[in-house]
Amino acid sequence: MRTIDLNADLGEGYGPWLMGDDGAMLRIVTSANLACGGHASDPETMFRTLRLAHERKINIGAHPSYPDKEGFGRRRLPFSPAEVERFVAAQVGALIGIAALAGAGPAYVKPHGALGNVASEDRPVAEAIVRATRAVDSSLAILAISGTMLETVARETNMRVFSEVFADRGYTDEGNLVPRSEPGALIDDAETATRRMLEFLRTGTMPTVSGGEVTMAVDSICIHGDSPHALEMARHLRDALEAAGFGIAPFLPPA
Amino acid sequence: MRTIDLNADLGEGYGPWLMGDDGAMLRIVTSANLACGGHASDPETMFRTLRLAHERKINIGAHPSYPDKEGFGRRRLPFSPAEVERFVAAQVGALIGIAALAGAGPAYVKPHGALGNVASEDRPVAEAIVRATRAVDSSLAILAISGTMLETVARETNMRVFSEVFADRGYTDEGNLVPRSEPGALIDDAETATRRMLEFLRTGTMPTVSGGEVTMAVDSICIHGDSPHALEMARHLRDALEAAGFGIAPFLPPA
Amino acid sequence: MRTIDLNADLGEGYGPWLMGDDGAMLRIVTSANLACGGHASDPETMFRTLRLAHERKINIGAHPSYPDKEGFGRRRLPFSPAEVERFVAAQVGALIGIAALAGAGPAYVKPHGALGNVASEDRPVAEAIVRATRAVDSSLAILAISGTMLETVARETNMRVFSEVFADRGYTDEGNLVPRSEPGALIDDAETATRRMLEFLRTGTMPTVSGGEVTMAVDSICIHGDSPHALEMARHLRDALEAAGFGIAPFLPPA
Amino acid sequence: MRTIDLNADLGEGYGPWLMGDDGAMLRIVTSANLACGGHASDPETMFRTLRLAHERKINIGAHPSYPDKEGFGRRRLPFSPAEVERFVAAQVGALIGIAALAGAGPAYVKPHGALGNVASEDRPVAEAIVRATRAVDSSLAILAISGTMLETVARETNMRVFSEVFADRGYTDEGNLVPRSEPGALIDDAETATRRMLEFLRTGTMPTVSGGEVTMAVDSICIHGDSPHALEMARHLRDALEAAGFGIAPFLPPA
Repeated sequence: MRTIDLNADLGEGYGPWLMGDDGAMLRIVTSANLACGGHASDPETMFRTLRLAHERKINIGAHPSYPDKEGFGRRRLPFSPAEVERFVAAQVGALIGIAALAGAGPAYVKPHGALGNVASEDRPVAEAIVRATRAVDSSLAILAISGTMLETVARETNMRVFSEVFADRGYTDEGNLVPRSEPGALIDDAETATRRMLEFLRTGTMPTVSGGEVTMAVDSICIHGDSPHALEMARHLRDALEAAGFGIAPFLPPA
Repeated sequence: MRTIDLNADLGEGYGPWLMGDDGAMLRIVTSANLACGGHASDPETMFRTLRLAHERKINIGAHPSYPDKEGFGRRRLPFSPAEVERFVAAQVGALIGIAALAGAGPAYVKPHGALGNVASEDRPVAEAIVRATRAVDSSLAILAISGTMLETVARETNMRVFSEVFADRGYTDEGNLVPRSEPGALIDDAETATRRMLEFLRTGTMPTVSGGEVTMAVDSICIHGDSPHALEMARHLRDALEAAGFGIAPFLPPA
Repeated sequence: MRTIDLNADLGEGYGPWLMGDDGAMLRIVTSANLACGGHASDPETMFRTLRLAHERKINIGAHPSYPDKEGFGRRRLPFSPAEVERFVAAQVGALIGIAALAGAGPAYVKPHGALGNVASEDRPVAEAIVRATRAVDSSLAILAISGTMLETVARETNMRVFSEVFADRGYTDEGNLVPRSEPGALIDDAETATRRMLEFLRTGTMPTVSGGEVTMAVDSICIHGDSPHALEMARHLRDALEAAGFGIAPFLPPA
Repeated sequence: MRTIDLNADLGEGYGPWLMGDDGAMLRIVTSANLACGGHASDPETMFRTLRLAHERKINIGAHPSYPDKEGFGRRRLPFSPAEVERFVAAQVGALIGIAALAGAGPAYVKPHGALGNVASEDRPVAEAIVRATRAVDSSLAILAISGTMLETVARETNMRVFSEVFADRGYTDEGNLVPRSEPGALIDDAETATRRMLEFLRTGTMPTVSGGEVTMAVDSICIHGDSPHALEMARHLRDALEAAGFGIAPFLPPA
């Protein structure tokens, strides 16, 4: 049976605030990208989410970000690659520190938001993330958006690298995401998004915004759960994948 | 030759701000307690100070604190022991993460300021610090104020525990620090402080504020360097110790 | 027609995070206590909430707090009265600054959470809040919990002072809140809470936890809206007050 | 007697940290740009510096910044003009709030660091700063770098606008600062800097990096004091101005 991983961002609360419904998402995904205090989270939130992910036997990733809670890590901030390397090491280190108390820690690193976008294009930033990850724990894998600079840079090392696609985003003929400012960037309809993913998983080729198709590798599908609508789409996708005979399983076994 | 360690707090800048003269202190001390982002520091400051300590072959400690930069970790904040355990793990983890980039990491943990004071008296907080330290890295030692609850709790485990005295503080007949609000708490004069330390190191008994003396164990002398006066006192003490035939050496070999 | 004000805490989001349903609460209350960046909020959240309150013609209050977002202002922090005076002035000043852009600003100050609790008992802290409020804008009123030190201190000045009771809290024979750790502190049932408030508003005497009653003055009822249950209770209370012939109106006309 | 103002950035500490020597600078300058919690400062630092400036009868300005303490406001951050308008209003409001306790408040606004640089070129950001300033207190003036967009935008209103030049920076034939990355940007030598300023004040024309000269208006000279060298240059300039017969006086009378 062909299996596929579903990943989502979790543990994105801060102090008294919550974001999304982590409990519901943990019944859908098999990998959870946990905020490390950059765009969200704090020691209590990290601990609570790590415990929850551990109880559910979920594959855990560290989700470092530009240090920017007010902007939720969505702003491209002027940090040099050397500075990125340091804050990624500090954030992943903090999560690993708390993981030692929670009983389960991260098996991979996936950069969040704007940092992920920059690392998709900018070789020095991608290299900084890879260097920090390997230095902190050489057994950590990288989860990268399929077709990006981060994937390329990580594959040049002897790290394990896993690739993800987005269920709700359009792709160009080159296998890149259609920018959000352009038509076809977002796929709002759960039916359409699900049908595309099934076709892609069966054929290995993704339909593109121009009407063509592009061959892409994938280990995981990234889904969003930060709104009731997104959560509904996530459930719909998982149900359809299972109905179509796919196994839903993590790309790495949980620790 | 009898040897003794000298330790001081370093890396206590934040962003553009500096505290004390780390370069000068690193010519005096053999162990450096490095701020981890709680009362001071940030990824760039941690990295820079770790590199400096590594170049000077200094024994490095992690110096976690209540998360309180505006109060410099000097305020007793209402965190539960479980919360202390989590933020200590996160702070020590962050320093270890960056240490992986800097080439040298912490060999011990010493709680800072108000957290150190609470851990000197409060068993559940002392236990939380010990649990967090052991969980993050079971090879880490504890550096505790001689005669405190933290020392007691750490010695109940199989951790390595080292004890420190203060060169510029008065002691009670029970071997505790005279509270700052009472006469005899502070020893401002470098000559007096140095003479006391020499006598203590030769005899193993510390003169007390009541005119008596108390037997204390010691692996390290904590010195301050956050003012020109404190730096001068530190230099004076080191020179006098060497002139008296003591070796100045770390209680742990640097990594 | 006898009128009464209903007040609630609003604008308690931070960056990407929301707290409660401000839109729904603004259909229930006539006064809104707006976070000023202490326990919650930031310039964008303040602006957005001020605009919303202004459009709904709501009476606006500034809601300063110990600076403690991770603890949501619920922890008693060791700030001196002089320090309280300064951070209250800064927080209220920040809200007034943004109010100048939003078209409507605060008419009163009500301290939040732990700061409100301390100001209920501690004269120097109550005086600090009153001094800061008067200095920043001498036309600002104080909204104090009925029977507290803050109310007493504010009434000693020539400020306008308004008093509030809680719909969902039990009272002692002295007119104080039953501590949360004791039986009778919380009234969970919407029917019971509403019946008590109606009786109190008709008679001016509040039933007490001992079975007696206490005479209290009141200008406003504080209601909570930070959960679906709390919001439901708030709606129920407002409906019942109107059905019983009370007008729901702010204690101060909106600016 | 021709008079000229000298201004410098002050109150740039944060919590336990200090920046520069405010006491020494206050013996040199006649206007002080006070940090408002954006790139530096906190309620205690603002209060202390406001008191000090008030005692010395110094003209006080608010010095808002991108909210970026770790970067000291020197990084261009991706805030929209509307967001700039809000955080400037909040920061200036906070300083005014504390000024009400300190006995003297700001008479002008000068944007700090990267915000000042962006406002020198970008009309929407310059307009946002002007709108926020006028909304918070319509009597506030603007202190702008001579020849910049901020100066232009402020002069289009009925605000009072004052212009500054830098003693230690080179100018282009268009009256703009030579970018720091180009030769002639910085004038390190105190003698040269002083001679240039004297010539400029006598003639109204500034020597340019190309060997030409440009006519500029000026109400104030901005000097730096964040290092012993900068402080020495500042003293040298003031002494030379006085020796040459200039009066050193604020461009606005202190409140």
